[in-house]
Amino acid sequence: MDPNAFRDAEDRINPLWLERLRAHLAAGETDDVIEMMEPLHAADTGDVLEAIESPEQLALILALGDKFDYSALTEVDESVRLKLMELLPNAEIARGVASLDSDDAVYLLEDLEEEDRDAILAQLPPFERLSLKRSLDFPEESAGRRMQTEFIAIPPFWTVGQTIDYLRAEKDLPDEFYQIYVVDASYHVLGIVPLDKLLRTRRPVKIEAVMNTNVVLVDAMEDQEEAARDFERYDLVEVAVVDENKRLVGVLTVDDIVDVIHEEADEDIRLMAGVGDEEVSDSTLDTVKSRAPWLLVNLVTAVLVSIVIGFFNATIEQMVALAVLMPIVASMGGNAGAQTMTVTVRALAMRELEGRRMRRLITREMIVGFLNGIIFAVLIGIVTAFRFANVELGVVIGLAMVINMIVAGSAGILIPLALHKLKADPAIASAVFVTTITDVVGFFAFLALAGLWFGLF
Amino acid sequence: MDPNAFRDAEDRINPLWLERLRAHLAAGETDDVIEMMEPLHAADTGDVLEAIESPEQLALILALGDKFDYSALTEVDESVRLKLMELLPNAEIARGVASLDSDDAVYLLEDLEEEDRDAILAQLPPFERLSLKRSLDFPEESAGRRMQTEFIAIPPFWTVGQTIDYLRAEKDLPDEFYQIYVVDASYHVLGIVPLDKLLRTRRPVKIEAVMNTNVVLVDAMEDQEEAARDFERYDLVEVAVVDENKRLVGVLTVDDIVDVIHEEADEDIRLMAGVGDEEVSDSTLDTVKSRAPWLLVNLVTAVLVSIVIGFFNATIEQMVALAVLMPIVASMGGNAGAQTMTVTVRALAMRELEGRRMRRLITREMIVGFLNGIIFAVLIGIVTAFRFANVELGVVIGLAMVINMIVAGSAGILIPLALHKLKADPAIASAVFVTTITDVVGFFAFLALAGLWFGLF
Repeated sequence: MDPNAFRDAEDRINPLWLERLRAHLAAGETDDVIEMMEPLHAADTGDVLEAIESPEQLALILALGDKFDYSALTEVDESVRLKLMELLPNAEIARGVASLDSDDAVYLLEDLEEEDRDAILAQLPPFERLSLKRSLDFPEESAGRRMQTEFIAIPPFWTVGQTIDYLRAEKDLPDEFYQIYVVDASYHVLGIVPLDKLLRTRRPVKIEAVMNTNVVLVDAMEDQEEAARDFERYDLVEVAVVDENKRLVGVLTVDDIVDVIHEEADEDIRLMAGVGDEEVSDSTLDTVKSRAPWLLVNLVTAVLVSIVIGFFNATIEQMVALAVLMPIVASMGGNAGAQTMTVTVRALAMRELEGRRMRRLITREMIVGFLNGIIFAVLIGIVTAFRFANVELGVVIGLAMVINMIVAGSAGILIPLALHKLKADPAIASAVFVTTITDVVGFFAFLALAGLWFGLF
Repeated sequence: MDPNAFRDAEDRINPLWLERLRAHLAAGETDDVIEMMEPLHAADTGDVLEAIESPEQLALILALGDKFDYSALTEVDESVRLKLMELLPNAEIARGVASLDSDDAVYLLEDLEEEDRDAILAQLPPFERLSLKRSLDFPEESAGRRMQTEFIAIPPFWTVGQTIDYLRAEKDLPDEFYQIYVVDASYHVLGIVPLDKLLRTRRPVKIEAVMNTNVVLVDAMEDQEEAARDFERYDLVEVAVVDENKRLVGVLTVDDIVDVIHEEADEDIRLMAGVGDEEVSDSTLDTVKSRAPWLLVNLVTAVLVSIVIGFFNATIEQMVALAVLMPIVASMGGNAGAQTMTVTVRALAMRELEGRRMRRLITREMIVGFLNGIIFAVLIGIVTAFRFANVELGVVIGLAMVINMIVAGSAGILIPLALHKLKADPAIASAVFVTTITDVVGFFAFLALAGLWFGLF
């Protein structure tokens, strides 16, 4: 492999390249380090930081000096970022932050201790300081917190030519932009002009004649997930963020939204599995802390389930085959419930369950539970009848299976819906509730039916 | 609520508005239907289609006639789309498809039966037909299948002024575009010019002087997920797609990629829960078909687990408390395993596990399993000792718990990694393998330890 290539065929960082960088770092060969790092995109610099050891990370940033693009720190795991921000001198961070677009700057500052954050803000020029403070005052995960405060706003009476001349002359423009905002004197948004529209139009045409007045506005207090849904629905690349007086205060760009979409889906996956807000780079102790509460909940429900089994002590003693078979009914119910629950939780997250569709889904899931119940009742019934040479035992386990599968389908849909109605995140606790119910019903239905059928009570 | 507002406060379609539309549809008042629908964005039209009954959907499209934007059909569930495409006359579809950008056109055509698709293609103008056929020849879920074949390519020796004049004069431009591609005579990409760059630069400047030559190229055969990762990593809005000779054949835009990112995360969630490629609007029978195979696999493993329990028939008969307690150990292992597995599957999907990080994660998960094992061993040990007034039984269940939690941590990480090495999707079968292992080990460890400790064999 070419030792000078940054990525290998599998799109990972080339190990030979990385070894070379580490050797230069260890030897303090700053010029070589700069030569290797300078061509990289900030995202690649972030990947390099994650691939090397902690002391090397600091050495790398210090070696790069003012050639280090602080937006690389927005691309690394939170634990790596916080550690580095802790180690770097505040003056150094302030210099780096000042050169960033406001959304990246806020991203770096928002998770710091208030003390450190204020110390860094104090070293910034007044205008940047105020603008960052305003963003940081918006709630976490709101559009206002995520927005970029650099944007281009022009009056409607300008012509296309004037606008282009302005863009050519003005030095203080955002790094990248995709549309121009048309505002009145109090910064109310009158329309937007996508750049391609501006380029297609002749110079004398007035902006108000080409602007798109059907504008999507996002409230700065709105949750970033709501904003993400607007982006997806209307295929946006940039959207205007307005304050409570409908004045333009910033813009959201699609690259931030892509991250939000990812986070949101990931959050659902993690919540359903009972994993907290974890990252691969979290410490062992943080991981234990994030997972233990969920396991504790599971322990409590497992003990509850075991108490239910305890009621049938005497029944099991008379017919030990029941103990051997009972986990099958519970396990099948747990799986069927998880399937329904997953579909429901995701449909709720994607806002796919309006009126008619919700009723349809509830009916469908009950019938699916019933049909799968019949199918697997017959299968397990036959297997059991042969295995224990006992047709009646096969009938009993089949009946219990049908009951538990219907319950699984109902619980899998009704529990997330109920949590949603109660304004809780349906992903967070659905799994515990659903498996507790399918376990309890699974064991109870099977043991009780068997007790009745064989007269064991 | 204002009956004329399209959406209510919760961002759902206003039920009053919808009732009005349905009444107009039922009465055949085409003009009123058009008046209500015309201001809507295609995405909102899609939402309306999903909110009304199947015969109304067809009536709505026919009522709108050539005012119906076929890109609305890209916004509805696959089952709704396929049914409508089935019902609409091919000539009508051909007319609608001809007015779409190629990526949307391909999206509508790709899932049709080959016969229907060819019938529609036959009615398109030759140039569109060939271009769509070429896209459809690329594999499903490849960049070539997803790309838009409309893009703007110019030579490097043009000036900024010439380029702007060209954009003003040319009528046949893509609907929306964010950057311009600079190519040589054989369509090899030399660079890109973002539109903001074009607007900031004075007319006499040569394009080759302003173009960005550090260009990300996506191979048309590449999987769309790979392309999505490039978008995320480098914060792109548009990327060039090239054929095997590195010639520019199309572009991918971020709105398509947002959908890919969503699909990808959703796929992981569904695969882990054993739900196929389902939609909320799928029929009951399709749902049963998609879920039954996974439940069958679960049935087989559950029977396997039950056979393991069967080995301890005699042990359980002598001490029925074992049957009451045994599901606790298995259930805790299953949960802990699911936690580790989820973290691993997502880290693999996001390419977060390179060399050093993978070894770190494996070590961490083993230690987390051990620590959580200790914590919950002590808890369940105490509970059991009191409940059954039997300290030794508490010790036995505690030991089994530690063993199963360590096994859960190891299985949760090693199984997805192994599947990944074998080029299988780690999400698809990890859950079955992991819970089978934690069930078997959970029941076996507890029953065997108890048998040995209390001399029940």
